[in-house]
Amino acid sequence: MLVFENDYSVGAHPQVLQALVSTNEEKLSGYGTDIYTTRAIEKIKKACDNQNAEVYLLTGGTQTNKIVIDTMLKQYEAVISVTSGHINVHEAGAVESTGRKIIPLQGYDGKIDPEVLERYMSDFVNDANNSHMVFPAMVYISHPTELGTLYTKDELTRIHDTCKRYGMNLFMDGARLGYGLASETDLTLKDINELTDVFYFGGTKQGLLCGEAVVFTHHNMPDHFVTLVKKHGALLAKGRLLGVQFDAAFTDDLYFRISENAIKRADELRKALKEKGYRFFVETPTNQIFVIMENKKLEQLKKQVVYSFWERYDEEHIVIRFATSWATTREEVEGLIELL
Amino acid sequence: MLVFENDYSVGAHPQVLQALVSTNEEKLSGYGTDIYTTRAIEKIKKACDNQNAEVYLLTGGTQTNKIVIDTMLKQYEAVISVTSGHINVHEAGAVESTGRKIIPLQGYDGKIDPEVLERYMSDFVNDANNSHMVFPAMVYISHPTELGTLYTKDELTRIHDTCKRYGMNLFMDGARLGYGLASETDLTLKDINELTDVFYFGGTKQGLLCGEAVVFTHHNMPDHFVTLVKKHGALLAKGRLLGVQFDAAFTDDLYFRISENAIKRADELRKALKEKGYRFFVETPTNQIFVIMENKKLEQLKKQVVYSFWERYDEEHIVIRFATSWATTREEVEGLIELL
Amino acid sequence: MLVFENDYSVGAHPQVLQALVSTNEEKLSGYGTDIYTTRAIEKIKKACDNQNAEVYLLTGGTQTNKIVIDTMLKQYEAVISVTSGHINVHEAGAVESTGRKIIPLQGYDGKIDPEVLERYMSDFVNDANNSHMVFPAMVYISHPTELGTLYTKDELTRIHDTCKRYGMNLFMDGARLGYGLASETDLTLKDINELTDVFYFGGTKQGLLCGEAVVFTHHNMPDHFVTLVKKHGALLAKGRLLGVQFDAAFTDDLYFRISENAIKRADELRKALKEKGYRFFVETPTNQIFVIMENKKLEQLKKQVVYSFWERYDEEHIVIRFATSWATTREEVEGLIELL
Amino acid sequence: MLVFENDYSVGAHPQVLQALVSTNEEKLSGYGTDIYTTRAIEKIKKACDNQNAEVYLLTGGTQTNKIVIDTMLKQYEAVISVTSGHINVHEAGAVESTGRKIIPLQGYDGKIDPEVLERYMSDFVNDANNSHMVFPAMVYISHPTELGTLYTKDELTRIHDTCKRYGMNLFMDGARLGYGLASETDLTLKDINELTDVFYFGGTKQGLLCGEAVVFTHHNMPDHFVTLVKKHGALLAKGRLLGVQFDAAFTDDLYFRISENAIKRADELRKALKEKGYRFFVETPTNQIFVIMENKKLEQLKKQVVYSFWERYDEEHIVIRFATSWATTREEVEGLIELL
Repeated sequence: MLVFENDYSVGAHPQVLQALVSTNEEKLSGYGTDIYTTRAIEKIKKACDNQNAEVYLLTGGTQTNKIVIDTMLKQYEAVISVTSGHINVHEAGAVESTGRKIIPLQGYDGKIDPEVLERYMSDFVNDANNSHMVFPAMVYISHPTELGTLYTKDELTRIHDTCKRYGMNLFMDGARLGYGLASETDLTLKDINELTDVFYFGGTKQGLLCGEAVVFTHHNMPDHFVTLVKKHGALLAKGRLLGVQFDAAFTDDLYFRISENAIKRADELRKALKEKGYRFFVETPTNQIFVIMENKKLEQLKKQVVYSFWERYDEEHIVIRFATSWATTREEVEGLIELL
Repeated sequence: MLVFENDYSVGAHPQVLQALVSTNEEKLSGYGTDIYTTRAIEKIKKACDNQNAEVYLLTGGTQTNKIVIDTMLKQYEAVISVTSGHINVHEAGAVESTGRKIIPLQGYDGKIDPEVLERYMSDFVNDANNSHMVFPAMVYISHPTELGTLYTKDELTRIHDTCKRYGMNLFMDGARLGYGLASETDLTLKDINELTDVFYFGGTKQGLLCGEAVVFTHHNMPDHFVTLVKKHGALLAKGRLLGVQFDAAFTDDLYFRISENAIKRADELRKALKEKGYRFFVETPTNQIFVIMENKKLEQLKKQVVYSFWERYDEEHIVIRFATSWATTREEVEGLIELL
Repeated sequence: MLVFENDYSVGAHPQVLQALVSTNEEKLSGYGTDIYTTRAIEKIKKACDNQNAEVYLLTGGTQTNKIVIDTMLKQYEAVISVTSGHINVHEAGAVESTGRKIIPLQGYDGKIDPEVLERYMSDFVNDANNSHMVFPAMVYISHPTELGTLYTKDELTRIHDTCKRYGMNLFMDGARLGYGLASETDLTLKDINELTDVFYFGGTKQGLLCGEAVVFTHHNMPDHFVTLVKKHGALLAKGRLLGVQFDAAFTDDLYFRISENAIKRADELRKALKEKGYRFFVETPTNQIFVIMENKKLEQLKKQVVYSFWERYDEEHIVIRFATSWATTREEVEGLIELL
Repeated sequence: MLVFENDYSVGAHPQVLQALVSTNEEKLSGYGTDIYTTRAIEKIKKACDNQNAEVYLLTGGTQTNKIVIDTMLKQYEAVISVTSGHINVHEAGAVESTGRKIIPLQGYDGKIDPEVLERYMSDFVNDANNSHMVFPAMVYISHPTELGTLYTKDELTRIHDTCKRYGMNLFMDGARLGYGLASETDLTLKDINELTDVFYFGGTKQGLLCGEAVVFTHHNMPDHFVTLVKKHGALLAKGRLLGVQFDAAFTDDLYFRISENAIKRADELRKALKEKGYRFFVETPTNQIFVIMENKKLEQLKKQVVYSFWERYDEEHIVIRFATSWATTREEVEGLIELL
């Protein structure tokens, strides 16, 4: 079977795994106070070229979204997300479980529409009854989005400007940030450090067994953050598990280099799909490719390929997703192309 | 000044107030165990002609919505509301504060669209990833809605059928139920008892100082409900305050009779507005009337009338709301008509 | 039957009720923006002789405790209470329902022990692992306590000093504050304004149908408090219900004068009990009297008197509570004394 | 330096680590649906000799306690713990953050006192006001306890009997269960399966990088548990991380064998301490040893040994903790003994 189901189907990158093996017998202090966590944080700050950054390592994506949103909002505040945002659809109410409301806005291609956002905020502050409403105080975006699309620098700047105008934090879910940065786009890591208040480098989908590195971009990590992480049940006794992995991932740009592989493989696959006349459900430059397939074709394909069902398109077509990852080989892509 | 701002600007109906006065010196047991609460509950069940009903008296609308939703849902469940639903917009995140997610669906005229609901549920149960989503287990509607519109019996039946098909509770917010029942509609109180799982008779807007009477229609009051109400900070030591008022309101159909006054007054106003050529923002049969007014006209009107600003319509028009109530007099309506 | 069961068994004081009657037909704006609420707040500030005070009117005691604690604590913070504190025992987990932990400390006579408190805090700040613990940031006391006892000025000062030393707020539950102030004690309302950060005047037990007036003593009402109250389901549409009642209660010192009646009646009863040789479970100067009664005596008494069962004392004795109130008459007390 | 600070200072047992390495390149499905998780669960059930067991793998101890308690309690229910219980002291309010109240009871040696428990429950059900209280519906114990002590079969049976009598679940925190089972005690794994409703095998402290295996002993895993775990932010995309580790740990009794090493080493140390005349703060048969040390002695010791500060004993003594683990060598223990 050829597996293009998702970007988390294999374990860790060999160098990340090797780091776990070679440090395994060292006696380290717990709860993230070990030397590897410290080193990882320094390397991440350096990669960001941002000495104002504060970095914290967490275990998974939903956990990270839940903790960042809960700890950065006050009790009368809420977070804005595009309707299709991961926190709004596929996180089992994790954000609401902490008492926070998500305000969903219509967007496009999985992205917040800067105009819709500006209009919502303008209406909100002019609404005489807004004391009966939760105050929007954060905008959540993901980059890449759920649909594999990317924000342009211009889009992000406009969202950022609206956020600043209305005193909101801008939070970028970076579960696949490595893939986003490796794709063709004008939005750089430097921009992200300047335009967002908090973002994260997803590790689970880019070479780690688990782990997301949250970057608070301007000394704005919430007070008593360790206690809050503990309260959320997210503080690992062996914090080294995250520290060692991120230390390896941010050594010699490993994180960025392996992310590039996914995009190269995705580009090869995208090119072949276009040549063969397949239609895309949405155009994406990243490691997720959404193809409108005939039911008949799928009957055959599914015997040899594992992909993700996305949604029914019409009576005779289904949208499926192929995902590449840092681990996808050229041979696998060639094998898939042959079957298409 | 003529006041048409809302339906809660005066105190209690004289008979309700008189009941508070005449029982004031009686020594009664606390927390809703008094004789007047018991009588009120019996009278409400009788008005519903529903001996399977269980009734509980609470203080206000947001409180009632929050408690009903929180206590009837399990932790992995969520409530569906139309996007414009009161719980989704004007309750300051009260529902989410208990950890419950609201799933907003597009509707029309302030109402859930039965088709949209059915499609959402059909997609949900067929979604292979739905274990990563909160399970929709309740549909919240209000009758009349935020926009003063009413469900027809056919619409409510279709929503009910979808609820039953997918194992969901149907909850009707009846903050203005008296006005809804007094309006021209084919939906009766008997229907509501049969088609919903829980609804309430709003008292605050229909003759009481405060109070909402929740009706669980088929012996389905959540276990240990008193404890849960206490946990929500909603158990009154002097439960008599609610018991005495509802006992009076449900004596000799007072609740229903005074609601009728609001509708008669609204009909007179509606007729006059039509004759004078005013356009309505939405057609309503209830005590709320939404009119598209010229800015210029409003400049003048606001010197003599208190109304509610609803929303900007265009550069030259504003949507305003006139609300009548059980206390509105024919003279007041005539006075307003003269100014229009 | 003679009723000494509690202090909330009759309705409102006649003057409070009369105020509701005489203002009933006035058209007032909603949600606490009416003129009576404004007046009540001004009168309460004046009674406190504290122009730095900010006052907010709520409906009941558990609701008030829940809202004050939830809104004044940050997410990593907790509240300290004596083990027997009302919030720790008889509020159905209302405080915890908002995600706040109560840290119970051993005390005496229903009161926090200043020494135990100081030691707990000293240990806490010296504990190297305290980032794995919630930070104590508020001390909750009630005055009078659950056992009808009172803090002395010296005790309250010592608790206050510890609070300041460790950056904690001091919150006084005043559900029966009127009775506390009317009792023989050296602790004045002026002291309370100076030594606490927030306290409240209980109305439900001192002449109102419902209502508690929260006093933030030094411009320290939490931001967006109206929104937070709404989120808790505690914002009344007809805020006038509270405003009118408190306006009447704080006119011509009514609140304080009627509280005195309860203490005079309690003193008469206490004196008679002593003379007749009854033993007290705890010595109290307030309107609650805890008496150790023989089972046999109770068999007889309960035919003519309603009292509260408190707890089993031993095989042959039971502790019961007699409560007087603003409405208790000399005749009732004389009647009870005759039966003892 | 000799490290006896805790039992989580090194990484994984070599065989557990090797399993991660050798499965690393396999393409596995996500979220705990992989073959290794399935195998681990089967092996755990077999080790328990309990075919009614349902097993779920989670990441850490606080997370596990929080999820088990939150998902097994209804909203009006609470959990009982001994005052010194981990959930009551060192989990940063994680349990309360989900709205659940902890009822702390006085115990002895870190254990619930069966008599105190029985008396509390008997009083509770006889309390006429218990509808104003949260209902105790679960007893939380840890085995070994925070103080390294163990329950006897008789004690656990008595606690179990009280639980059954009052309809409560019995939950055993097994963060160090391997060490408990390897110690001299009459309580077997079979007993634990019979007497508790839910318990867990701690992995983090017994050979894994992370991981706790929760055992619901009689088909009583809460409905929709995966969704609830996701809601808590605890569902790992690469569930294999837990599955592979537990599969290795429960192959050929590895988990139990390596736990034995910790106890052998602890016994050697305990014997030496006794011989040298040291006093114990509490007698323990497990891998944690609490010694009362002279301040002077510690000044010297801390240059060569890492231990845990426990608490101040008196002016001249401090209680410290030495912990052994599956990784502690005889040489390390001998080295420590020489220094004592």
